[in-house]
Amino acid sequence: MRYELYYWPSIPGRGEFVRLALEQGAADYVDAAREPGRGNGVQAMVRWLEDRKLERPPFAPPFLKAGRLVIAQTANILLYLGPRLGLVGKSEANRLWAHQLQLTIADFVGEIHDVHHPIAGSLYYQEQKKEARRRAAHLREERLPKFLGYFERVLVRNGAAQGYSIGRSVSYVDLSLFQLIAGLRYAFPATMARVETNYPRLAGLHDRIAGRPRIADYLDSARRLPFNEDGIFRHYPELDA
Amino acid sequence: MRYELYYWPSIPGRGEFVRLALEQGAADYVDAAREPGRGNGVQAMVRWLEDRKLERPPFAPPFLKAGRLVIAQTANILLYLGPRLGLVGKSEANRLWAHQLQLTIADFVGEIHDVHHPIAGSLYYQEQKKEARRRAAHLREERLPKFLGYFERVLVRNGAAQGYSIGRSVSYVDLSLFQLIAGLRYAFPATMARVETNYPRLAGLHDRIAGRPRIADYLDSARRLPFNEDGIFRHYPELDA
Repeated sequence: MRYELYYWPSIPGRGEFVRLALEQGAADYVDAAREPGRGNGVQAMVRWLEDRKLERPPFAPPFLKAGRLVIAQTANILLYLGPRLGLVGKSEANRLWAHQLQLTIADFVGEIHDVHHPIAGSLYYQEQKKEARRRAAHLREERLPKFLGYFERVLVRNGAAQGYSIGRSVSYVDLSLFQLIAGLRYAFPATMARVETNYPRLAGLHDRIAGRPRIADYLDSARRLPFNEDGIFRHYPELDA
Repeated sequence: MRYELYYWPSIPGRGEFVRLALEQGAADYVDAAREPGRGNGVQAMVRWLEDRKLERPPFAPPFLKAGRLVIAQTANILLYLGPRLGLVGKSEANRLWAHQLQLTIADFVGEIHDVHHPIAGSLYYQEQKKEARRRAAHLREERLPKFLGYFERVLVRNGAAQGYSIGRSVSYVDLSLFQLIAGLRYAFPATMARVETNYPRLAGLHDRIAGRPRIADYLDSARRLPFNEDGIFRHYPELDA
């Protein structure tokens, strides 16, 4: 099956969590909104979103076309892809646990986004800079240690094998944790330099994922989009410390 | 199986989406943190959260104990309960679609919460009132019409049967949409009075769910917690309009 991923072409954003799974799973996929030849990229994506004949429309990107299915919501896409790409265990307990972790990552990603957009996604950062500074202090001092401390504990407590979040092999959750750490290092370099030694397992996981052959190949390719100030993880020095 | 639901005992909050499914599904369950006899309510819940021997700890309530499983994240709990309580169709396509809608409801619920807490969950509303007023205008004018318009379309486009979001019978998504409309009417009565006629299917769904025998019985009981100003849906007149 050839999968079609639809996501904004100029940012890694939430689409990147799906891309990493497709890459590690060696899936046959096309990053549809980045291929102008195939129905004009973003226009094709917007057509899907606005298609009045679609009985089950996505609310927003990313969404994945898989045969006749159109699946939206990042964690839901990974719930679907995980078993098909060998990126989650077979038991229901393992799948629920992986999904639970992915939803907790999604919550944290939402909070990271809202640091630079605490008032409205439709306003520019410059229009909510004062509020962003205030929110950023709480992210750095409360939320970031709470979430990273939690994921560090998950890594420590995995009884099956050290170095993975679940069981004895790489899962889509590990790939998402890699992206989370990479994004935090980009957006909050000073904060991360100060606190990262508190999370040695997460730092180790980041490096091991980056070194996996398929992921290393992907990170070196043009398919990997760099972080930038239009995405979720934005580097504004005034929000770091 | 007797399920144990753990959630803050003083607010409907995210736990309510689970309660409604348990009630409609006539499940054998205990609202564990509200039963002081059973391990001191909230203390028992906090013990679970802080239990260092738990290999797979929840990040936050709600969580559901189901035999040996401890499942957290509201939408994940419903993903688990849906098939067991007859509140979602059997096909993978139906289950993914239901879950996708539930995750979109969760996103909206998060935004509704952040209207009164745009800076930090750890600060009082009074400490972020100015920012809340600014954010509330965007919720009322942009986000609320976007989300409610989306869910209205979903109801209109369900080809299987009018009156449900998915297929021909009630699903956990319908129950959650009921709670969403009830919460919005509580928190933003002036706004809802003004815009609700734009969403006749959602209003109709709310009323039909409220009139279902098991739900009507539940809503009349002491098991149903009232909305209040400690929860997600808070009525602050200055945020309504």
